[in-house]
Amino acid sequence: MSRDSKRAIVNAAITLFNVNGFNGTSIRDIAKKAKVNPATISYYFDNKHGLLEHCFTIFFEGYVKCIEDGFSLLDKGAASCLKRITENIMYYQVENMYLTRLILREISIDSQMVREIMSTYLMKERFYLSKVFEKGIKTREFKKLTADYSILQLKGFLSMPFLNTQYMTEVLHILPNEKYFAEKYAGEIFHWIDGVVCNPLYERIYLAVK
Amino acid sequence: MSRDSKRAIVNAAITLFNVNGFNGTSIRDIAKKAKVNPATISYYFDNKHGLLEHCFTIFFEGYVKCIEDGFSLLDKGAASCLKRITENIMYYQVENMYLTRLILREISIDSQMVREIMSTYLMKERFYLSKVFEKGIKTREFKKLTADYSILQLKGFLSMPFLNTQYMTEVLHILPNEKYFAEKYAGEIFHWIDGVVCNPLYERIYLAVK
Repeated sequence: MSRDSKRAIVNAAITLFNVNGFNGTSIRDIAKKAKVNPATISYYFDNKHGLLEHCFTIFFEGYVKCIEDGFSLLDKGAASCLKRITENIMYYQVENMYLTRLILREISIDSQMVREIMSTYLMKERFYLSKVFEKGIKTREFKKLTADYSILQLKGFLSMPFLNTQYMTEVLHILPNEKYFAEKYAGEIFHWIDGVVCNPLYERIYLAVK
Repeated sequence: MSRDSKRAIVNAAITLFNVNGFNGTSIRDIAKKAKVNPATISYYFDNKHGLLEHCFTIFFEGYVKCIEDGFSLLDKGAASCLKRITENIMYYQVENMYLTRLILREISIDSQMVREIMSTYLMKERFYLSKVFEKGIKTREFKKLTADYSILQLKGFLSMPFLNTQYMTEVLHILPNEKYFAEKYAGEIFHWIDGVVCNPLYERIYLAVK
């Protein structure tokens, strides 16, 4: 029961924060939508900021897991590792579309909470992704690129459709919550990995060494 | 004088909306920062929504101009046209970094104003970019790609650094307001255009026809 009401509160908060914004939503609104007493929210999350922080934590715990899971394949090659990470994040974000949208918008605001999130989760993300790029560059599987710029591009790819869901549906007529989209879009990022990140001479170098 | 105070109001609004969010900023705060009387703001912009709408309009008028300027080169080839558009947008966004950040965040919210902006400016953007991709695909300068997915990727590239300025500076240590960044990052997008969008066989086809 307590677990259910906690989940109902979080889901109500995600919906309302997305529709009315964080500042435009009150604890009372969330309580009403989640069908709980406002005191229950205070009990679990202290206040609205605590609730938002909880959303950040849920999101990034899962997000970093996606990266770690793909990172464990680094020994099998940098490109396939990067593809696995991409795929994991894509499916994770499709599955948690509303939460993703909320987080991607809130992370762009300059606040103490965002700074803390950055110094933990996003530094961890950068750590893993840098390792993948460094390994790829070292083994010549990747071109000599600036890892941070590639991380930036990868993150641009992965964020755009989920932050701008209305633009997607109303202007481009693409539905980002469909499995078809996840597959096709992951494929597009793979083209970027193959055509921009990977060294076209690698196969030849690799075979020559063998 | 009136023009100066109008500009001061807009600049103050951009700064405050970025720091405290739209809902967290009052007309009184803006008036104080711009050193004008709150009545002056009402006179020019009616209310806070009118002020935000004005910001959207300034931004997108310049943005669409960047696209139209590049689009006029379509006869010289789809790839060079797309590169010019990219470059124009990059420099425009670097020059108007705070305004860009505000717009990129506010456009992700579902409101009547955003819907109107989408149905005018972003439909126009899609129209021009689609024409570029269609032409490139038709002349075989580009691969057979889905234009809307390529537009999505291009927009992801162009948005990421400007929406997430703190992430850029605090995690990646890249300063997006520097000219060096604009040049290097535009170059990265060119790699994507060359390696992913362009048809590697085009040169050969083109020469064979000649």
